[in-house]
Formats: sequence, C-alpha cells, structure tokens
Amino acid sequence: MPMLSDPSVKYRQFPPVHLPNRQWPSRTINKAPRWLSTDLRDGNQSLPDPMSIDEKRSYFTKLVEIGFKEIEVAFPSASQTDFDFTRFAVETAPADVSIQVLSPCREELIKRTVESLKGAKKATVHIYLATSDCFRNVVFGLTKEESKNLAVKCTKLVRQLTKDDPSQSGTIWDFEFSPETFSDTNLDYAIEVCEAVKAAWEPSVEQKIIFNLPATVEMATPNIYADQIEYFSTNVTEREKICISLHPHNDRGCSVAAAELAQMAGADRVEGCLFGNGERTGNVDLVTLALNLYTQGITPKLDFSDIGSVIDIVEKCNKIPVHARAPYGGSLVVCAFSGSHQDAIKKGFASHEKKLIEAQSTGKRVHWEMPYLPLDPADIGRTYEAIIRVNSQSGKGGSAWVILRNLELDLPRGLQVAFSKVVQERAEVKGQELTNEELCDLFINEYYIDYQGDEVFKDQQYKLVDYSISTPAKGLKQIDAEIEIGGKSVKIEGRGNGQLSAFNNALAKYLNIDLNVKHYHEHSLGEESNAKAATYIEISSSNKISRWGVGVHEDVSQASFLSLISILNGLHRSGEIN
Amino acid sequence: MPMLSDPSVKYRQFPPVHLPNRQWPSRTINKAPRWLSTDLRDGNQSLPDPMSIDEKRSYFTKLVEIGFKEIEVAFPSASQTDFDFTRFAVETAPADVSIQVLSPCREELIKRTVESLKGAKKATVHIYLATSDCFRNVVFGLTKEESKNLAVKCTKLVRQLTKDDPSQSGTIWDFEFSPETFSDTNLDYAIEVCEAVKAAWEPSVEQKIIFNLPATVEMATPNIYADQIEYFSTNVTEREKICISLHPHNDRGCSVAAAELAQMAGADRVEGCLFGNGERTGNVDLVTLALNLYTQGITPKLDFSDIGSVIDIVEKCNKIPVHARAPYGGSLVVCAFSGSHQDAIKKGFASHEKKLIEAQSTGKRVHWEMPYLPLDPADIGRTYEAIIRVNSQSGKGGSAWVILRNLELDLPRGLQVAFSKVVQERAEVKGQELTNEELCDLFINEYYIDYQGDEVFKDQQYKLVDYSISTPAKGLKQIDAEIEIGGKSVKIEGRGNGQLSAFNNALAKYLNIDLNVKHYHEHSLGEESNAKAATYIEISSSNKISRWGVGVHEDVSQASFLSLISILNGLHRSGEIN
Repeated sequence: MPMLSDPSVKYRQFPPVHLPNRQWPSRTINKAPRWLSTDLRDGNQSLPDPMSIDEKRSYFTKLVEIGFKEIEVAFPSASQTDFDFTRFAVETAPADVSIQVLSPCREELIKRTVESLKGAKKATVHIYLATSDCFRNVVFGLTKEESKNLAVKCTKLVRQLTKDDPSQSGTIWDFEFSPETFSDTNLDYAIEVCEAVKAAWEPSVEQKIIFNLPATVEMATPNIYADQIEYFSTNVTEREKICISLHPHNDRGCSVAAAELAQMAGADRVEGCLFGNGERTGNVDLVTLALNLYTQGITPKLDFSDIGSVIDIVEKCNKIPVHARAPYGGSLVVCAFSGSHQDAIKKGFASHEKKLIEAQSTGKRVHWEMPYLPLDPADIGRTYEAIIRVNSQSGKGGSAWVILRNLELDLPRGLQVAFSKVVQERAEVKGQELTNEELCDLFINEYYIDYQGDEVFKDQQYKLVDYSISTPAKGLKQIDAEIEIGGKSVKIEGRGNGQLSAFNNALAKYLNIDLNVKHYHEHSLGEESNAKAATYIEISSSNKISRWGVGVHEDVSQASFLSLISILNGLHRSGEIN
Repeated sequence: MPMLSDPSVKYRQFPPVHLPNRQWPSRTINKAPRWLSTDLRDGNQSLPDPMSIDEKRSYFTKLVEIGFKEIEVAFPSASQTDFDFTRFAVETAPADVSIQVLSPCREELIKRTVESLKGAKKATVHIYLATSDCFRNVVFGLTKEESKNLAVKCTKLVRQLTKDDPSQSGTIWDFEFSPETFSDTNLDYAIEVCEAVKAAWEPSVEQKIIFNLPATVEMATPNIYADQIEYFSTNVTEREKICISLHPHNDRGCSVAAAELAQMAGADRVEGCLFGNGERTGNVDLVTLALNLYTQGITPKLDFSDIGSVIDIVEKCNKIPVHARAPYGGSLVVCAFSGSHQDAIKKGFASHEKKLIEAQSTGKRVHWEMPYLPLDPADIGRTYEAIIRVNSQSGKGGSAWVILRNLELDLPRGLQVAFSKVVQERAEVKGQELTNEELCDLFINEYYIDYQGDEVFKDQQYKLVDYSISTPAKGLKQIDAEIEIGGKSVKIEGRGNGQLSAFNNALAKYLNIDLNVKHYHEHSLGEESNAKAATYIEISSSNKISRWGVGVHEDVSQASFLSLISILNGLHRSGEIN
C-alpha cells in the first residue's frame, strides 16, 4: 500500500495566516453578496464539450432571468467564437446587467478584449496576472517587481481604452483585477500589487475597483481562506473604494464553506457557477450559496423558485448531470427512504399544518421547522409528493405518507404497522424501491378496496351488492343485505344496536364466523359536495387472527360494511375462510 | 417571483454559539481521526435501490481493504436482512475491525441488536435518542427529563447485556451514544444527557465512551458546528474518557468543512461514507477528508492508492455514479481543457522532473508543487495521460502535452502555436473535445510524418525513396537522392555546406522553390538501442508563407530531409505547389 508509506515526503501543510485579532468567527452573514456568474467563461472552458452558440444564448437568458446583474461571458481575445458571443451579450443584455470579460495581461489581447465590449451599457474588464511564487517562477518566469509593473501597465491601458476614452462614455465601466493564485500568494505582496493597481485605476467610493482574490486551486482548510481575506480586507488602504470578490474552487470539497467564511471575513462579492460547474472540481456552487442564505431568512436576490427549469438548462448546456445528492437541486435530496425519517417528516408536516391553521387566527409567524428538511421543497418548485419514496428499508411512516398524499387515506397507526410489513416484503422481493403507484396498487389490492369501481375488483370473493336498514324496535337495527360469494348471490340478514353490528351479525350467522371489532376509525375525504367516507376496522376473529379492513364510499354506513367485506376478502386470500 | 418577496417570514438565522475563548480557528489538523464508515448503514438506508446481500459483502470487503477499523454495518433490529448481514460481518471481520450496529432506545430492539453481535471480536453498540426540541416535541413527545432518563435506562441495558455479562467477555465492547440531532440541541442539555449516559456506562481512559455529535441535518455555517464541538469538548467532564465523534451531513454543501473545523475544535473521530453517500445530500465524504489530509503531508491511515477500484465498488453497489467533479475521484478533476491551464501544467511537470533529477545528487526533498493539481494523480492510481484533454478552448500547451506523452515528440513553441490552430478548427467542427488518438492522428496527417511505416502514407504526393552523400570538396556536401512526386520517381541532386542544405538545394533546383529554413530543432526519442531522431523545421518560402515540417527516422539526416518532405506535402495540400 504505497499511500501508507510516508506521504509527508511529498506534501506539506499549508502555512497558517498570522492573524492575532481575528474577527470573522464571531460574525454572521446578514446580506446577499454581489453575485458574478462565470458559467459561460470558467464553467464553459472546463467542459469536455463546450457549449454551442445556441446553448450559450439560452444559458445567458436563464442567468438574466434568475437575477444575475454581473455575468462573465467569455475570453474574447481567445477565439472568434468567444468574441462573437460577447457581442451578442453586449447587444441583448438588460441595462442593469454588467457584461464581464476576461483577458490576460497582454497589450494586444487587452485591446481586442475592450473592442468586444463596445457599446455596452455596463461592462467589466477583468484582467489577471500571476502573483504566486509557483505561477510566477514556473509558468511565467517573472520577478515580483516585473509582475507588479506589468499589472500597473495593463491597468493603465484598460483605463485609457475605457473610462478615460471619451468615445466610451456611453458605457458604465467596471474594472476587476485578479492576483493569481491569490490563495497561494504572499499576502503582503498581493496587497502591494493591488495597491499599485488601485493607484493606476483611481477608483471612487461610488465606482469601486473589484479585487478578485481567487482560490484558483483550493489548497487549505476554509478558515485559512477566510483568514487571508480578513488580512487583505483589513490591511489594504481605501477599503471603501474596493469591492473584494471571492472566486473559490472546490478541490478540497470546501468551496461553499470558503465562500461563506470569507464573506464573514469581509468579502463583498462571489464568483461561481450554477451547481458548481468549472475547472476540475468546479467553481463554488452559487445555487447552494444562495439557498443557504435563503434558509437563514436572508433574501438571496437570485430566484430559484423554479429550480427544475434551472437544472434543465444547466444539464442541457453543460452536458454534465446535476448530482442526485447536490444540495437543494439533487433528485434524492428531498427523498427519505428510512422509516424513522419518513415518520418524522410525516409528523412534522402535520405539526406545521396545525400551526398554520392556528396562525390564521393568532396572526403569529410560523417558521419552517421540519425534521430532515431544511428548506420547504415548495419554495424551489419541488413537490411534497416527491419527498418520500419507499423501499424495503422504509418503515410505516413512509408508506402511510404516500397513501395519504395519493389516496387521501389517513391510516390509523395499527394499520400503518400492518401495511408496512406488506410493503417490506414486496420491496425485498422486487429488490428496488416501490414507486408511489406500485405502493397505492399494493394497498388497494391488499385491502380489496372498492375504490376505483367494480371493474377492477371483479375477482373479489366477497362483494356487497345492496342493503336496506329497518328499525324493528327502539335502539335495534335490522339489515337485509345482498352479498355475492364467489359470484353467487346470497341474501343475509342480522340485527344489532347499530348498523355495523347488524351487518356483522348477519355475516356471523351466515358464515359462522365471529368478527370481533377491536378498532374503528372513520374520516371524510374529498371536497364537501362529493365527500366520501373512509372507514378502517380491525377485527380479531375467534382464532385470534387480527386483520384490518378498509372501506370507502359516499355513504358512511356502506363504507363501514365494505370494511368488513374487505376483511372477509383478506381472510379468504390467506385461506382462513372459504 | 415568490422567492424574492420576503423569505424572512418563513426562515430565521441559526443562533450563534457563545464561545468567548474560541480556540479552533488558530489550530491545525495534525493527525488522522478515527474513521467510522457508515456506508452500509446510513449510506445503504438512503439508496433508492438498497444493496443486495452480495453487494453488501463486496462493499464490506473493500472497506476492510481500504483500512477502516470501525464499520457500521446495519440496523439489525429493523429487518432479518440487516440481522443476517451483521452476523456475516461479525463472522468474517479481521480481529482489529470493530463491527458497529445502530439501535433506537427501545428495550426489545436493543436486545435484538446485541444478539446480532454475539461472538464478535470487537463490537460497538450505537444507540440514539432525540434530544433536540424539534425531534423531542414533534416526533416523540417526550420531555427533557423523560428523554434523559430513557437514555440512561437504555445505556444500562446495553451495559448489562454486553460488558457486564460474563458470557460476552470474548468481545471487546465499545459503546456509542448519539443525541439527535445534536447540532439543533441546546448545548447544555446535550452535555447533561451525555454526562448521565457516561455515568451509566462508566468508561475508562483506555476504553473510552463514544459520544457522536451529529449534524443530522446541516443547519448553519460550518464554523457554528466547530463552535458547538469546542463548547461540548471543553465543558464535558472526564474528557480523557470520551471519544468525540462527528457525523456531518451535507445539506448546505459544507460537511467536509464542518468535519475539518470540528476536528480543529477537538473531535477525535469522523463518521461518513465513501464519496458522500447517505440520506438526502449525503454523509460527509470520507475520500475527500482522507485525501485532504494526505495533501497536507498527514498519513490518512486509509488507502486510496487505487481509487479506480474504490469507485467501481461504490458505483456498482450504490447504483449512484460518483460525480465527474467529485474531489479526487471525479473523472474530470485531473483534466484541463483550457489552454493556459494546460500550458501551466506542462511547465509544472517539466520543472518537477528537473527537480527530481537534481535531487538524485543533492538528496533534497522534492515537494509536489504543480499548477492546478493539488495531488499527484499517480498517488491515487490515476495516470498523467488522463490529465490533459483537448477541446476547442485549449491552447497550444494541451495538444503539445498530448503529443509529447503519446508520440514522444517535444514540439518547439512555434510549432505548438501552429498546430493549436489546426486543433481548434477541428474541435470546433467536431463540436466536442478531441480524444488523444484523434489528436495524434491529426498531428501525423497534418505533418505527413512517416511515423508508422509507408503503408499509412501511400497517398503522399512527395516521398523520399533513397539518398547518398558525397564530399566533393572540403566543407562541401553533395546529395544524390531519389524522390517520388505523385508516384513518379525523380532523381535530384544538390550541394551545400551541410547535408540538409544540400538536400534543400536539390529540391530548390528541381522544384524552383526557395525553402528558407528559419528554425531547426532536433531531439532523440525512444530507448538508446533503437533511438530515433525527431527533427522540426520551419521554413518561410519566397511568398512569405511560413510552414512547419516534422521528420522522424533512425538516421538523423534522413529525419531532417523528411522534415522538408513534410513541408512539401503541406504546401501541396494547400495548393501552393503542385
């Protein structure tokens, strides 16, 4: 096992930041940052199959719809395709959306880049330069002084071509500078370069300069990134003229945390991609960041109320699926397969609905407090129905919930337990989760519910054809009923102190069986005008067998008779009666 | 846009922890935690299609191979399947692997649970109880006092059935207690319950009690979880007899960060799943946590040196793919499509190899410092070859790197630029990335390299058949060569002060063309015994057209002649000569 030998030969710990007066761990995030989507630049450049022009256009349209006001669209000096797409974005963007493009610090490329933005209402020129030792030495071969001078020279060039050029005055110009890779750069040197760039650009409080401080590669625990941002934020001069932007990648799986802690440390803006697309492990996921804010009661200023349509665009254009376990958007994150989770969610919904009803009179605010569900799925356009799916690991709660949502039948606890055993057996035989439809069919068949009309249940051994009730004496009911047994019509009659006991008596006499009713539950279902009744009966017969029956009918009496018929059919199937 | 209305109506900020003397932000992680894999329990219960028995067995075997010493295998009281699998694990586990199983705090279920562990060499009984307000009130309807008493009662029962039972003395018993959901429980109450449980269990310094403090649902930024752990760790008594275990879920995408910061805050153990399987967004990903340690020079005590085989098992058993951007394991995380990234990686490898060679004499330690690659792919059984793939966004570096790795041709910078344009055109036409094979074919065809024998290039317009060199005078070379033009054999002769200039002179005279050699590069390739030479020539012809040619041959002179032949074929194809 080579890994276990001695990894310290090859790697070393990322050095901590000296920050004696560290403030961020005591702070909280109280507002949304400025968002920059780089889906069409950093995201697109990382795709095995880059987006077609049509795909880029539909993606851009979606970003605007979601509410992004800053969108990095391309690397226009790199190819004609990128240049042309920048023109499209410039020409179609709403007035309040700034089109951002990226260029390296090379004169001819900067000129071409600015050219691509001509006529924009709002535009951001973003240039980057290697400042980390590794990149300066290995990749570019520049000294610290040479790098700083190049940054200043290129900043002045951008300034001359944009805000200092009277012919460009129709555009609101922003400028962004990225010391690459910030997270691996000596902090004092990063500040030194940024101070020089700031002096060259001359930002104002109203029109701040954007310093993007990328974790181009995530190299340390996220608290270190926060330390670096706090160090930068507290040591740079004229902080009020600076917008500190974050650009975390996810190499250590901590980009969301890095972005959150770094906001606590003073950052103003976050660059990332929807569902974390981007080089290697991806840029930070803006969906997660935004909805994390949302669940803390902070308006994210991005609209994910129809997350399905966002997923559609992202998957179509990136050709990389959103993972089933991606926070908020993943197909499995609003599912619960375990019985205890399902049971808790079912109780949570009941409690929440009760509070909402109470709030109608008290006017009290009802907070979302739901076991296992930090976000109400409805807030992002997902349905409650989707949240519980049932497999052989599920307990009573899960299947009961599915039956409630789909058949409107609110099963008593004893019936939940009985039915969960049926479900578990079926799911183990199938070796897969049961769909909601399979689960409902299983329930209907198990309890011989005459729910969908006679047609479906023509193979029932016992059927109720008709009945009439009379009152031969005060407090006494007489039933005369016609039932079918194995297709043969039979007249039965019985008496009791109520209709159900009369019907039970009739069955007992004819079938020579004692159905001792242990539990009886009843509730209405459906709208008032055509409400039905559902009845649930548990019996213990003479031979101690307990069994549940279910009946549904417009006539509540008939529903209760059907519960007993349901039990007879169950007993017949298990061979206990003919 | 309903989301934008006022989310604060429904959600509220998670309350911060009062921790005036907070220590964790100044600490670093210096050793691996105790790892607990719950892939077969929390992971499996979250699967739409739970694992079959065979799948569970092969997964368990892999976990042991990776080096896990604590494995939670099932919920044995929940089903016969889980009970039977626990028996399998107990009977097959190595002596140093503790088999852990989970049970709720119910007497009959605890009995059944302990029963499943009979005869184990090492075993951990894990019980959980609701302690958060939300779970206690909504789900279980227990007061604080009732919950605490139940925890104590169940702990005593486990004790009586395990370490206090003489017939169980063949087993080393561990005990784990989880206050659910810890992260949403009043901290002082969580400590109060754990103190009572500790008193009931009576742990020792040698045989610590495990308090698992789950973020069953991730509800706040990860620094809050670290605060909670530090609060617990510093306020609980007899800390030396306690192992604090973490169990973070990923609802806010910060589980890895939460586990790392909470280790800094004092935790000793981490529970999670490979590649972050588990309820909803998953448990924390143990692959990422382990390899994050590895890249900081800390031995993780888990072996992922053949990560491909781990991915195979995980995908086969979970039936959920590892995402393409999953840290370390994802298919795209050691790929670079952007030209500047590819260029930097190529330079990084060159620099690293140079340092390794120098280190052979100096004996100096060479650290891994590679642009965009925090981990050497070779350390997890991935290949360098896989790291650069080329699409239309790639620059010169990427395709050059592929050619170097596959054809051993180290292209001069000018040729890299020329070839990258060819690649970009082809990739844009294809609309997809080029495979390494397509890229090599493209290169061979573009430069008519006679690399794979005559057969492949029989459609070449120009071919070199044979040549002889003589020296008619001192410092003067004479060539007599036979070439084919359009299948017709032609004898040519020329003179120059070297063999190449003589051949060039011969071509010039016969074809009436001036091939002015601007650049000439040459290197050997292959093993010494059958080494070949590669030559690269750039010419500018009379009409200012610049073009590169490439020749490869055992005979270095012939290789250089083939470079000029390569150029003639290129000029022929573009219609500049016949």
